[in-house]
Amino acid sequence: MKFTAGQIAELLNGKVEGNEEAIVRNVSKIEEGKPETLTFLANPKYNQYIYTTKADVVIVNDSFEAEKEIKATLIRVPNAYEALAQLLEMYEQSIPQKTGIEQPSFVDDSAKLGDFVYVGAFAYIGENVRIGDNVKIYPHTYIGDNVKIDDNTTIYAGVKVYKNCIIGKQCTIHAGAVIGSDGFGFAPNANNEYKKVAQIGNVVLKDYVEIGANTTIDRATMGSTVVQKGVKLDNLIQIAHNVEIGENTVIAAQSGVAGSTKVGQDCMFGGQVGIAGHITIANGTKAGAQTGINKSIKKENSIQFGSPTMDMGEFNRSYVVFKRLPQLKSQLDELKKKLEE
Amino acid sequence: MKFTAGQIAELLNGKVEGNEEAIVRNVSKIEEGKPETLTFLANPKYNQYIYTTKADVVIVNDSFEAEKEIKATLIRVPNAYEALAQLLEMYEQSIPQKTGIEQPSFVDDSAKLGDFVYVGAFAYIGENVRIGDNVKIYPHTYIGDNVKIDDNTTIYAGVKVYKNCIIGKQCTIHAGAVIGSDGFGFAPNANNEYKKVAQIGNVVLKDYVEIGANTTIDRATMGSTVVQKGVKLDNLIQIAHNVEIGENTVIAAQSGVAGSTKVGQDCMFGGQVGIAGHITIANGTKAGAQTGINKSIKKENSIQFGSPTMDMGEFNRSYVVFKRLPQLKSQLDELKKKLEE
Amino acid sequence: MKFTAGQIAELLNGKVEGNEEAIVRNVSKIEEGKPETLTFLANPKYNQYIYTTKADVVIVNDSFEAEKEIKATLIRVPNAYEALAQLLEMYEQSIPQKTGIEQPSFVDDSAKLGDFVYVGAFAYIGENVRIGDNVKIYPHTYIGDNVKIDDNTTIYAGVKVYKNCIIGKQCTIHAGAVIGSDGFGFAPNANNEYKKVAQIGNVVLKDYVEIGANTTIDRATMGSTVVQKGVKLDNLIQIAHNVEIGENTVIAAQSGVAGSTKVGQDCMFGGQVGIAGHITIANGTKAGAQTGINKSIKKENSIQFGSPTMDMGEFNRSYVVFKRLPQLKSQLDELKKKLEE
Repeated sequence: MKFTAGQIAELLNGKVEGNEEAIVRNVSKIEEGKPETLTFLANPKYNQYIYTTKADVVIVNDSFEAEKEIKATLIRVPNAYEALAQLLEMYEQSIPQKTGIEQPSFVDDSAKLGDFVYVGAFAYIGENVRIGDNVKIYPHTYIGDNVKIDDNTTIYAGVKVYKNCIIGKQCTIHAGAVIGSDGFGFAPNANNEYKKVAQIGNVVLKDYVEIGANTTIDRATMGSTVVQKGVKLDNLIQIAHNVEIGENTVIAAQSGVAGSTKVGQDCMFGGQVGIAGHITIANGTKAGAQTGINKSIKKENSIQFGSPTMDMGEFNRSYVVFKRLPQLKSQLDELKKKLEE
Repeated sequence: MKFTAGQIAELLNGKVEGNEEAIVRNVSKIEEGKPETLTFLANPKYNQYIYTTKADVVIVNDSFEAEKEIKATLIRVPNAYEALAQLLEMYEQSIPQKTGIEQPSFVDDSAKLGDFVYVGAFAYIGENVRIGDNVKIYPHTYIGDNVKIDDNTTIYAGVKVYKNCIIGKQCTIHAGAVIGSDGFGFAPNANNEYKKVAQIGNVVLKDYVEIGANTTIDRATMGSTVVQKGVKLDNLIQIAHNVEIGENTVIAAQSGVAGSTKVGQDCMFGGQVGIAGHITIANGTKAGAQTGINKSIKKENSIQFGSPTMDMGEFNRSYVVFKRLPQLKSQLDELKKKLEE
Repeated sequence: MKFTAGQIAELLNGKVEGNEEAIVRNVSKIEEGKPETLTFLANPKYNQYIYTTKADVVIVNDSFEAEKEIKATLIRVPNAYEALAQLLEMYEQSIPQKTGIEQPSFVDDSAKLGDFVYVGAFAYIGENVRIGDNVKIYPHTYIGDNVKIDDNTTIYAGVKVYKNCIIGKQCTIHAGAVIGSDGFGFAPNANNEYKKVAQIGNVVLKDYVEIGANTTIDRATMGSTVVQKGVKLDNLIQIAHNVEIGENTVIAAQSGVAGSTKVGQDCMFGGQVGIAGHITIANGTKAGAQTGINKSIKKENSIQFGSPTMDMGEFNRSYVVFKRLPQLKSQLDELKKKLEE
């Protein structure tokens, strides 16, 4: 590929500052910028690199103010990250898409496939499966009996979807994810042995959901484990049986939600967060990485941190003192001694 | 399906309170109960919903005492959760089971399969494998050379079992689990490079073991990593090389046990618990979610919490003060000031 | 197999103490030693077992000093663990290796395979893939378009490698690992909906890298997520987009590194460690299990612990006081009371 700064500015509705004829043939990160590449600056943490980057063109926010001379040509846009996303998407869409049914694959006679689907080699599609238009099913994917997958959804290699699950439109499920495995339900008997409780429910993913690689979502004991519209789950996340995740909630990698918990909409959780079972998390709740939420969060839009969780501000104030506990103890001991004297 | 409350009570040896002829066609959760469905009440957290549920029939414990009028018909049984489990299992067993060998699959000529097995399409069964009666091996499963799988075990789609591992009777292994990957063993040299230590042992799963989706169990360096009878492991758990997990121990999702540790029997660990290597955990130990057990637990039946772990009661008492540390510090500062005056 | 203590000592350049003719037919762990087996003693935690083990031959460090009589024959070597590693490797290499292309498998016409490769049944090899000599690709592995895999690398069953990724020489990737899934990048709009940012970069694994079972490594948004030479990653680890892991760094299971972070060389992290995004970790940093590193670590060779992280010594000193916080509070209350009197 080969573009000028001027051509890119036109695509993005941006303003060029510098050489309109600067040529880019590839993209690069600002801190590793190479000649004839395009890069971007959105996170102020990286401001320092704009003065030294060897990239020839940098997309920046309209609000960006240079503190010294910049060699690169700038393209100013209202939101540099969105503009980048737009460019990357154009690039992605210029790559030819997979279509057709590769062989060998296994498609049960009772399954119905929409138009323009891709079914990779070694994919398995069970009885009575319904697959919409433009769906892409990569190799080694297992689609159990009676599963429904709606239009424009992409399922990458090796995903396993157990029977009866329902997947919406425009979803993306990454390699190795497991949808609909049995919930972890056992009834103990008098000898401390655990008898399995059959898990006859399913998993429902609504539209625009993205599920990360090797993430697991268990089927409900009865009814459905539900992931609402627009939810984004990162890699290696555990969603237990009968959980509901609210609309547009975003969860980072290796977090887990235990059984029957209802997470509200517009929540954001960092990595390795744990959420206990049978609780409710209010809309707009945020939690820092490794937070352990062990009780319902009733107030909307709070920020949680620590294990067990606290209001983040309170946790931080306590942790400042925790760091100085030995000194605190010394002071107390000294005081005690003085008083005894 | 269509049953009356009377018919279900008869199956469960329960007593009807209300309309014996009430009809149910499906099951539902008590908080989302729908007409013509059956639900249950076992966890007192959900008591409130029994007065408003639209489910027509509710299974309750004999000991349940209503605080106001209930519209639904009740079926009283000694243990509502067990009764539900019994019903769900009947339902599950009424669904036709998979049998036979789907094509294309790969079964080495030297492998021996029992009666009534299911081998899904794209399953791989290596040299000298021994598979018992009624075993179900779903599509995309990899069974390495010399593996033995005993009767009535179910292995879901995409499970990978490395060579020489041994799996007992009546086990269930969920999609994406990996049994027998190399232990994490490296010998550092003088240049800080790590040389791999060959892992020539195996993994042994005894009878009635359940392994969750995408859980990983490493093979022993020498000898066996052993998961004893009746153990239940949830999703995304890591069991390192040479570990032993005792009988009927139950571990929730995303927990990990490091190398050579021996976990006793009848233990229960919450989610995201970490257990260090080369230690011993006494029988009946319990640990709350996210606990970090960094030393042997010698006393049986203790409850552990915190990272690093403490007795749960002690942790909680300390954490109560942690939450008020800024006030504690202020009080101390004030005292000091007063004393100086 | 059957060897005498004398033969093994010769292989290892060690010295026999006891019966040169003692016979071993297998290996065992020292605490479970059986007659006619070889075992080893490297970790002093296990010293006690050498006096009671039933193994007939024990490899020990030259520096080992017996405190009472030992029945077993000893083989003294400079480093018992390295000597064991050497023996295990000889054993491993004596087992016949898989070679050839099993059927059915899917190898695109445009792919190029080196000499002596193994391609297992149901493996998928996409367009323009380049595979070096002696590479082993186990069943159910997915190798996306344009992927390059260099000589002597082993990829176990069910690994998924997305398009354009590059894997070095002498690497080992365990079952279920996912290399090159999309980074978790979304741009929020005014309605709190998230628009996916296309991830057009790749993952580069340099030589001598080992990746554990079900570990996930996301592709870069632009450029590469890079795992440098000699890095060892355990199972169920998450490496986010645009991360770089420095040479010979070792990370234990279930740890995660968030986006764009640079981890130095020769680092060692325990299990379940979390590392925030957009930070830098100095060479030689160590972190205890469950540590939460939320800021750049600038000093080399520090030891980190706690969540959020502290210098390990400082954390431990604070935690000692944390454990006694209720008593501290009582003392303070008492002091206050006294002073008020």
